[in-house]
Amino acid sequence: MSSMTGNKLKISIFGESHGEAIGVVMDGLPSGLEIDLSFIEKQMARRAPGKNNISTGRSEGDLFRIVSGIFEGRTTGAPLCAMIQNQDTRSRDYSELKIKMRPGHSDYTGHVKYSGFNDYRGGGHFSGRITAPLLFAGSLAMQILENYKGIYIGSRIQKIYTVEDSTPFEESEECVLNLRNKEFPVIGDEASQNMQQEILKAREEGDSVGGVAETLILNVPAGYGEPFFDSVESRLSHMMFSIPAVKAIEFGEGFNMANMKGSQSNDPYMMQGTRVITSTNNSGGILGGITNGMPIKFRTAIKPTPSISKTQKTVNIEEMQNTTLQVTGRHDPCILHRAIPVIDGAAALVVLDLILEREGEIIR
Amino acid sequence: MSSMTGNKLKISIFGESHGEAIGVVMDGLPSGLEIDLSFIEKQMARRAPGKNNISTGRSEGDLFRIVSGIFEGRTTGAPLCAMIQNQDTRSRDYSELKIKMRPGHSDYTGHVKYSGFNDYRGGGHFSGRITAPLLFAGSLAMQILENYKGIYIGSRIQKIYTVEDSTPFEESEECVLNLRNKEFPVIGDEASQNMQQEILKAREEGDSVGGVAETLILNVPAGYGEPFFDSVESRLSHMMFSIPAVKAIEFGEGFNMANMKGSQSNDPYMMQGTRVITSTNNSGGILGGITNGMPIKFRTAIKPTPSISKTQKTVNIEEMQNTTLQVTGRHDPCILHRAIPVIDGAAALVVLDLILEREGEIIR
Amino acid sequence: MSSMTGNKLKISIFGESHGEAIGVVMDGLPSGLEIDLSFIEKQMARRAPGKNNISTGRSEGDLFRIVSGIFEGRTTGAPLCAMIQNQDTRSRDYSELKIKMRPGHSDYTGHVKYSGFNDYRGGGHFSGRITAPLLFAGSLAMQILENYKGIYIGSRIQKIYTVEDSTPFEESEECVLNLRNKEFPVIGDEASQNMQQEILKAREEGDSVGGVAETLILNVPAGYGEPFFDSVESRLSHMMFSIPAVKAIEFGEGFNMANMKGSQSNDPYMMQGTRVITSTNNSGGILGGITNGMPIKFRTAIKPTPSISKTQKTVNIEEMQNTTLQVTGRHDPCILHRAIPVIDGAAALVVLDLILEREGEIIR
Amino acid sequence: MSSMTGNKLKISIFGESHGEAIGVVMDGLPSGLEIDLSFIEKQMARRAPGKNNISTGRSEGDLFRIVSGIFEGRTTGAPLCAMIQNQDTRSRDYSELKIKMRPGHSDYTGHVKYSGFNDYRGGGHFSGRITAPLLFAGSLAMQILENYKGIYIGSRIQKIYTVEDSTPFEESEECVLNLRNKEFPVIGDEASQNMQQEILKAREEGDSVGGVAETLILNVPAGYGEPFFDSVESRLSHMMFSIPAVKAIEFGEGFNMANMKGSQSNDPYMMQGTRVITSTNNSGGILGGITNGMPIKFRTAIKPTPSISKTQKTVNIEEMQNTTLQVTGRHDPCILHRAIPVIDGAAALVVLDLILEREGEIIR
Repeated sequence: MSSMTGNKLKISIFGESHGEAIGVVMDGLPSGLEIDLSFIEKQMARRAPGKNNISTGRSEGDLFRIVSGIFEGRTTGAPLCAMIQNQDTRSRDYSELKIKMRPGHSDYTGHVKYSGFNDYRGGGHFSGRITAPLLFAGSLAMQILENYKGIYIGSRIQKIYTVEDSTPFEESEECVLNLRNKEFPVIGDEASQNMQQEILKAREEGDSVGGVAETLILNVPAGYGEPFFDSVESRLSHMMFSIPAVKAIEFGEGFNMANMKGSQSNDPYMMQGTRVITSTNNSGGILGGITNGMPIKFRTAIKPTPSISKTQKTVNIEEMQNTTLQVTGRHDPCILHRAIPVIDGAAALVVLDLILEREGEIIR
Repeated sequence: MSSMTGNKLKISIFGESHGEAIGVVMDGLPSGLEIDLSFIEKQMARRAPGKNNISTGRSEGDLFRIVSGIFEGRTTGAPLCAMIQNQDTRSRDYSELKIKMRPGHSDYTGHVKYSGFNDYRGGGHFSGRITAPLLFAGSLAMQILENYKGIYIGSRIQKIYTVEDSTPFEESEECVLNLRNKEFPVIGDEASQNMQQEILKAREEGDSVGGVAETLILNVPAGYGEPFFDSVESRLSHMMFSIPAVKAIEFGEGFNMANMKGSQSNDPYMMQGTRVITSTNNSGGILGGITNGMPIKFRTAIKPTPSISKTQKTVNIEEMQNTTLQVTGRHDPCILHRAIPVIDGAAALVVLDLILEREGEIIR
Repeated sequence: MSSMTGNKLKISIFGESHGEAIGVVMDGLPSGLEIDLSFIEKQMARRAPGKNNISTGRSEGDLFRIVSGIFEGRTTGAPLCAMIQNQDTRSRDYSELKIKMRPGHSDYTGHVKYSGFNDYRGGGHFSGRITAPLLFAGSLAMQILENYKGIYIGSRIQKIYTVEDSTPFEESEECVLNLRNKEFPVIGDEASQNMQQEILKAREEGDSVGGVAETLILNVPAGYGEPFFDSVESRLSHMMFSIPAVKAIEFGEGFNMANMKGSQSNDPYMMQGTRVITSTNNSGGILGGITNGMPIKFRTAIKPTPSISKTQKTVNIEEMQNTTLQVTGRHDPCILHRAIPVIDGAAALVVLDLILEREGEIIR
Repeated sequence: MSSMTGNKLKISIFGESHGEAIGVVMDGLPSGLEIDLSFIEKQMARRAPGKNNISTGRSEGDLFRIVSGIFEGRTTGAPLCAMIQNQDTRSRDYSELKIKMRPGHSDYTGHVKYSGFNDYRGGGHFSGRITAPLLFAGSLAMQILENYKGIYIGSRIQKIYTVEDSTPFEESEECVLNLRNKEFPVIGDEASQNMQQEILKAREEGDSVGGVAETLILNVPAGYGEPFFDSVESRLSHMMFSIPAVKAIEFGEGFNMANMKGSQSNDPYMMQGTRVITSTNNSGGILGGITNGMPIKFRTAIKPTPSISKTQKTVNIEEMQNTTLQVTGRHDPCILHRAIPVIDGAAALVVLDLILEREGEIIR
């Protein structure tokens, strides 16, 4: 299942970078849900390229249109399809990229997987551009979670290259919502400046940088998810690694848990009024694969954008010989800030699916 | 799907810690494959409790028996079921654990998820003991990969608490096979001693420690896996987070990729004879969700065993009041060394599934 | 997916006719449901062989034991495994059946599918005996539907060979429940006698007969199921054709609809108090793939038991030559009456799955 | 899973009768396959409305365009999306149909399922029009089967209302291919005339008729499919009941098997040169859920088109009162001839999926 996923809420994405259009089908959406398309547009604008000097120059409005599944402003319950036309597909010469494999990209693996028949132009179906329909679907799910379930999801950039933001990520709706209004979603202002400096520096060097995103999901009740093969961690990680460039994920204290003893890492339970909470949240809101009612918390690592203009060593797969490659054209020196809304939306798809599985298909 | 997983090769695990038996059904195994049960027994012995003073005192032979699916020493193609009787189920008093939620365990989340009807004795279906049938299935898959595909999988303990093994993990079959013969699978001898010291120290303190495992999968050809939702990272992480206590995973350089620039993190391609390889392996053998022919490499964090004998703060969910709890009984001060073969086997299940999906259901 | 099925309620069956045991795992059962095992025993007794002269002489108690998933009389929410030991596996000589393919059986197709490695003894995994664990799971589901949802399922034999029962199948719980208490579940007494005569006659001739079952599912509310690929007809037919020997299914008037005009076949709606009903039920309770609140009604054709003692033409697949075969041993001259509870249970599994998908995982 | 189906070859359909467009996404297609779009156009023309006086007057070219997945005339391996714009969507008044439920249609079940939020215009997502994208996908699969596997699929009308075609359905490629060139795919000429007379008569009466289709799948080798839950019958029936108006299916002799004894119904094996065949084909090419190498054969019943212009009794669901309804507008007096290519294509999707599962993802 390469392009379809989900249990009760299923999505199917399609499209290639230089084809006619890209899009997504969502199956299993409850009927009767009010959808505010401007909410989705705002999220998509956060990912859209060409906004400023820290992103690629490719200019795509990423304007979607609803093909099916919404009637009189509400979901019909039938499959919802949204399409985004490809507009700015420069008819440049891709013949070099057909035979010289870009390091760090899927050119070579795609070539082997599809025996050379893949559409190599602009990365084809492997293009980061395919995250636009994923973001559409995710933003729609995020909106449903907020309006019908009071569940809020938000991510911040916690690190770019070697610059970390040591400001804590406050577990509040306000903090999460504030991040959405920032063009560069970092909490600490100084860190934000330094991170952007690193990106610009990388751009000047013809190089690129990556970083770490930190995500919070607020107000998911206890009892969602499954033990073993459909643990919340399994489901979320499965989805996160579907986003190109994600190479690591940790829940709660993650790798840092190895530095703790059980007496430190175990989150003690306590009563908060009539509600059971934990006084720490090292587990990131998940125990035994199931939510415990505390905020779900995870961090993902995004690798540096593989498209750089520096000369790189590679192979010519037609002649099966060593060669060098200098990738030209429009590239992002960093994609983390553009990936942030995609991460949020992808998480929302998983959470909404978990809810539909536990609560059934009717949401009001 | 809590207890079933897989696309073409499906497994279904069942059982509760204090029930009659635990087991696994494997569906979709190719027919005609020779199975050496002693290979599986050896792997299961590595996980089995009660071996030494760094593990729990619960003594279970973990003896499995084949219920179906093998005939005259070979797989029949029909579902293979293996069962493990529960033997050493002390009829102790579990009434305290029914109402006092153990911190770091799934007691509370299981209680909410199943509305209090879950079998709480010994953790029930959430017990780490349920990894035994997973290990059975995984070891069977691992054996098939080795004998029919030349694919080798092995993991080492890279860190216990604050002790790291700085010895590099050689990407060779020999190194991988050596680890299987070690009772405590650490490469560096000095690190091994220090790690075991930390475990014993934790035991003395009534506490526990966790750590980090590092896994290698050798000889998977290029072209396996899918872009997006069934990326190799998605599939492997989904499976790894099904193993209780895993809280983080990173592929290749993972979180460390954030510290690199694109010019460093991109793995340059080069020819090795007629074969395309990369001169570094920061991506951990996976690009665009698809294998590139280099060793697959990932690290997983295992949290400290939540069962500790130190007094902990918790709640009584019957009276909904704060209370304290001192867990008595047999506990592992560390489970990482016992989890190692489970990680290997779980990875083997994913890899065999990827192979069957790409190559079809006939293996000879 | 040969041995696993289901969306939210999944089952996994395993076992071979002459192996140690056969069984089933049920995943996704709601927790806290009271299970009366004697209900299941009664249903299984209806299928059990060796009861009388119209069935096989193989004597199996079909005694199951619960391996997991039930605690203090209620479902725990964890996978429920039930096992049935194989007892009466005569160690006769199967060497002839290994090479001479029984016509009408899966011997040849199994041989090709599994390259000759399938367990051929007694049909192996293809044995009708594997319907016993399916029946276990189905009876458990049927019980839940009755006790928690007021949904009743029952089937009658409508035809054996050329003898039809023209008595109408009354759409009442009473009629459905009465059938369960009949050893030979036919409504009309005279038809029942004649049908049994045909079976005995076939037995005397060393031959066999088949027939038609008619099934009713009462009290499923409107709105369950999906348009297109998960239509209620798709789901039920998928399940029914999983029962060996089923070769046809029709919903409502089925093939007879071809003899009607739209003005006859369309079921007119009318109010019954505050409830919308239809005055006829030609559609069998399903429109657009979704239940309309009327009884679900379908008929299935069961082919004559392929095991007959008459000499038959076949091939020797070792020598690839024509030959003849006379099957000896214990055989059913008709299996329809034994298949009836299996059909009921299999239908129950589908209906319970539809309910869990629509209503969520909590049933009280 | 309402709008997505398939194991290795997955499809996702979307669209509503009066929305912007309808379409399909195909995931899991092998790469490098040459696609002749005119083949698909021809199949779609067979279904397209508005051709003659035995079909609806709605005039839609059913012109599709490829959005993704084909590059330089071959499949890329990435999801293939095809779209069909809705053109002739008369902006008539649907307010009556919103509250008066058309008998035999999904109006009422869709209303309950989606709590009244479904797009009721023209049947919305339940419209027979949604079979156009299904047909697109099916025709593409059919073409691959023919060109790369030598597998041919074709259906004939065997019965319309009470008129049956007693001409036998010859199991030859020629016969199958001839049917495709007939505007009204009946083998016997006299029967064809009489059937069309019945359709015209029904049209004059403001009524409709249904019928029976018979389908052949030639040259599928032995050994494809699975025992139990993924039997070939299960898979094909699941798919066939996804086509609106299908109410029955039988494989081989189907219901007629009940009229046979085992000695008649068992298909004797015999050698044909070096190949094992059966001298009769009562089983329809499937034994134990697995193909036996003989032609796969099944019959499906299509109910009379529910849209008739005769006055019908129904309910007003707003006022919850009895009422009458006279449906006006363009309707098919019979849809069987238009459904024929859809049945062929839907069968092709299942067969191609079975092949990919058994043989792997590479087809050359």
